[in-house]
Amino acid sequence: MPINELRKDYLLNRWAVIAVERKRRPTDFVKEIEEKKAVTCPFCPGNERMTPPAVLVYVPSNGDIKKEKDQNGFRHKNWLIRCFSNLYPAFSPIHEGKTVKIKEEGNQVLMKAFGHHEVMVESPRHDEHPGTARISQLAYLINAYLDRLNEISTEPYTKYVSIFRNHRQDAGASLSHAHTQLISTPLVPKIVGEELEASKRFWVKNKRCTFCEILEKERNSPRFIWENNGFVAFAPWASIHPLEFWIFPKRHQSTLLDMSQAEINDLAVALRSCLGGLRTLLKDPPYNFGFHIAASKEDSDYYHWHLEVYPKLSIWAGFEKSTGMFINVVPPEDAAENLREAIEKEEKNL
Amino acid sequence: MPINELRKDYLLNRWAVIAVERKRRPTDFVKEIEEKKAVTCPFCPGNERMTPPAVLVYVPSNGDIKKEKDQNGFRHKNWLIRCFSNLYPAFSPIHEGKTVKIKEEGNQVLMKAFGHHEVMVESPRHDEHPGTARISQLAYLINAYLDRLNEISTEPYTKYVSIFRNHRQDAGASLSHAHTQLISTPLVPKIVGEELEASKRFWVKNKRCTFCEILEKERNSPRFIWENNGFVAFAPWASIHPLEFWIFPKRHQSTLLDMSQAEINDLAVALRSCLGGLRTLLKDPPYNFGFHIAASKEDSDYYHWHLEVYPKLSIWAGFEKSTGMFINVVPPEDAAENLREAIEKEEKNL
Repeated sequence: MPINELRKDYLLNRWAVIAVERKRRPTDFVKEIEEKKAVTCPFCPGNERMTPPAVLVYVPSNGDIKKEKDQNGFRHKNWLIRCFSNLYPAFSPIHEGKTVKIKEEGNQVLMKAFGHHEVMVESPRHDEHPGTARISQLAYLINAYLDRLNEISTEPYTKYVSIFRNHRQDAGASLSHAHTQLISTPLVPKIVGEELEASKRFWVKNKRCTFCEILEKERNSPRFIWENNGFVAFAPWASIHPLEFWIFPKRHQSTLLDMSQAEINDLAVALRSCLGGLRTLLKDPPYNFGFHIAASKEDSDYYHWHLEVYPKLSIWAGFEKSTGMFINVVPPEDAAENLREAIEKEEKNL
Repeated sequence: MPINELRKDYLLNRWAVIAVERKRRPTDFVKEIEEKKAVTCPFCPGNERMTPPAVLVYVPSNGDIKKEKDQNGFRHKNWLIRCFSNLYPAFSPIHEGKTVKIKEEGNQVLMKAFGHHEVMVESPRHDEHPGTARISQLAYLINAYLDRLNEISTEPYTKYVSIFRNHRQDAGASLSHAHTQLISTPLVPKIVGEELEASKRFWVKNKRCTFCEILEKERNSPRFIWENNGFVAFAPWASIHPLEFWIFPKRHQSTLLDMSQAEINDLAVALRSCLGGLRTLLKDPPYNFGFHIAASKEDSDYYHWHLEVYPKLSIWAGFEKSTGMFINVVPPEDAAENLREAIEKEEKNL
């Protein structure tokens, strides 16, 4: 009987058991799921009063886009993108005169959860998810990410901004209208912090970006999935989710804000192709994605922003949750092969 | 509007947002779930040929218990506890002449997944889960944990043994017959490793066990849930799961193997009461549990073994998975209050 492999993440001290004997083929995970649909979708056009006022809307204006916000009880209509505070925020903006302090009492360490928690509605069309969206709409969406990231980052209590997406109820999406969330946190989250430390250590020693090296290697490995001028997608060496893949900008850059307009368009195409391929392969499975970006300007030499996509096909159970070690029954090499083929099929339809 | 709290785990650099304004009451999570039942349960008595041969069975013999194993094609019947290799093991025993080596090629680090992956059937009764089990049966179960832990630990390639349980399909149990799993790994898993490091640092500085201190404090906090002579249960300060609770031995001990027979019985009662209370409160919800034990004898001064119970009531989505920061909508103080009451009710029925 073949022995499974234990693989370490490129940077994190995190290990995954990779079932090399291939117990499961990707298509074993296809599951037809009926989604519950809300009677009235609060994110659909016309229902703007069901959400807090927009902090940003894109509105078409004479062939161009105007950036506005809802003020004095007014709600903009005819928007292309709409961003507002989450009605039940995990993090809330700081009030005047308050500062962010860590309070320590022996083993009990806490701070106020100051920050932002925003919802970005990706399209007026309820079902325009990135895997099927128009490229033009995705380019608006990415530009809107940058606008919000730019504004939130300037707050002195923002130490990190997480941009993430939950697709379908099984992956934690409580509403099915296409939307992304942004959360800013008053400290750098654990996983990003560990990546920052490890990439900094590598840079100090080698004066090179470790991610640039990974990229170069994986572009020519059996884990390669897809590329265009600006971006490359691959299944990571020690994937902890079946069918997991990451999308990296080819040019070294530490935050989304470093992208050129050409790169924004390339990222739109990357999202459409890769998430479209995943959708084709597994009949629109639930997934999560999250951007990893540098926490500050100091990280710009050694950190390389990227997007991590986690299809939600298996359950983390007692072993994973109590140890932080993961069992993945689809080797990333198989994942990549299947995604490559699915994306090819998908692109023929574009 | 009240601001949520960000709380740090006692030892890990892991933060949880605790929704202090209490968005959800524990009973909001009650969900009636219909489990799919296998036509023939391979774990039920009479179906011993459907599994690999037992590496350990407890068989009653003249009012005592005999410990046996299945050999030469023979399968023991009339067992009280039955343990065998997982049919699809994540980790497999080492073959002669092979050693465990870490192979490094730049960013690609791997080793063979040598170890054990065993299933322990907890009772001949299909539905005798710990929350409803006879105390005598639970005492057999814990004794059997110790027997297997003892044997697996002696293998030179065993660096850690994880004992964990998945309850119901939503928590990853593919078969509904009451069972626990044991996995031994050729390296110390991330979460346990980080606890070991932090508790060692505390010990070097203070010459005290940090867990003993936590225990003392939480016994007298609003997070206290339950205790008997040997054990205490509480909701951890920075719980990352709604209704999470931990069970600690009161006496300082680093591994399950340090327990006296009286303590084994006390742990059986603790499992019955606490998991029974959880069951009463939320109508038999899915959950996972995992033991955290010391990795080696060197850790015995500063590490304190314990059991962590994770009810599966919410979904970790894009934010949690990409950052390693968690949002918990049930404050541990509320969790403790509700569990205290439910256990009281439960114990009246014992």
